[in-house]
Amino acid sequence: MSVDSPPVWDERFCESLRELMRWRRDVRHFRPDPIPDETLTALVADASLAPSVGYSQPWRFVSVVDAARRAAVTANFERCNAAALNDYAGERRDDYAALKLAGLHEAPVHLAVFADTATTAGHNLGRKTAPETLLYSVVGAIVTMWLLARARGVGIGWVSILDHEQVSRDLAVPESWILCAYLCVGYPDEEHPVPELARAGWQAPLPESTTLYRR
Amino acid sequence: MSVDSPPVWDERFCESLRELMRWRRDVRHFRPDPIPDETLTALVADASLAPSVGYSQPWRFVSVVDAARRAAVTANFERCNAAALNDYAGERRDDYAALKLAGLHEAPVHLAVFADTATTAGHNLGRKTAPETLLYSVVGAIVTMWLLARARGVGIGWVSILDHEQVSRDLAVPESWILCAYLCVGYPDEEHPVPELARAGWQAPLPESTTLYRR
Repeated sequence: MSVDSPPVWDERFCESLRELMRWRRDVRHFRPDPIPDETLTALVADASLAPSVGYSQPWRFVSVVDAARRAAVTANFERCNAAALNDYAGERRDDYAALKLAGLHEAPVHLAVFADTATTAGHNLGRKTAPETLLYSVVGAIVTMWLLARARGVGIGWVSILDHEQVSRDLAVPESWILCAYLCVGYPDEEHPVPELARAGWQAPLPESTTLYRR
Repeated sequence: MSVDSPPVWDERFCESLRELMRWRRDVRHFRPDPIPDETLTALVADASLAPSVGYSQPWRFVSVVDAARRAAVTANFERCNAAALNDYAGERRDDYAALKLAGLHEAPVHLAVFADTATTAGHNLGRKTAPETLLYSVVGAIVTMWLLARARGVGIGWVSILDHEQVSRDLAVPESWILCAYLCVGYPDEEHPVPELARAGWQAPLPESTTLYRR
């Protein structure tokens, strides 16, 4: 295959890709086995194949290795999760309390993903009317990494139940870096094609999410 | 393969997936050939395999088929792009003016992608400390669709140079729907593994985007 001629992705590949997306999952149950450093480095490198507004490549990946910092983030989650529980009542509250929403204790890797809002890369192209696209670009890198990770047997769980500014302070990153996602990364303890929140009866698939509207 | 045992994605698949990501591209040059309705419908259905906060599935896909509405969005882009040009000076301004930043005239499909901020799906799980994750979930669906589209030979270009609220008004969607992305969809006129903005000399790959920082 020459560098100029694109590969062909056949029906079999497309079916495998759909299966990958079906089995991707937000993982909260991890085995304690470590992730090899070269695997994590390769995932970060591959994430940068994602699209970005103006080719700004604003994602910054931070592996949180310091035990005190990991503990601070875990405590942050526990505070926020307790506060969130108070928003629910009755059966819904019991259901919420029974959910496992993060694998911060078990996951061998904590990966914080930031958007560098001060980057001059891309020269602001595409951001004037939609500055949020800088953050959206980081989400694209996360989803790209998530799929490649799963293909290699590595699970990822996105923890959003956090005081995001506190995480940034605890990790001592530059002030221009905005936290997009805090990820738990590790080998999953179980595999499912159905989202955990669907299996737990929290939320069923939504017909309007697969609808093509027309205007 | 039973429903309980996950497929295995081998080295060859992983390499094909990386190649897909390398060749994905933001497409602005389209052939005029129409996209079959069933292809578009299948892409929207597959997009819903994306992760979403609290399994809220907030993405809403709108195919813009009305000629007057498409013309309004195209005029919106042209106004915003002219305004953006005025932010640049000298050689950078000439470079910007020479870039083709959208394929709105040629693309057979205009696809607007919204976040339904009023959805009760997911029961607000995960959104209390990070309401932006609802929008991020929609970005995940877009990137998911983008990869599956490319694997099937369909190109996508994301047009962010738009007055987003004006698009929402022009498409007469519910007020709770926030525009995340306006996509051009069609068969690409050319194929490249290198981003158009890199080929045009606008922005080179950024070393810090592939760096794994540690804290």
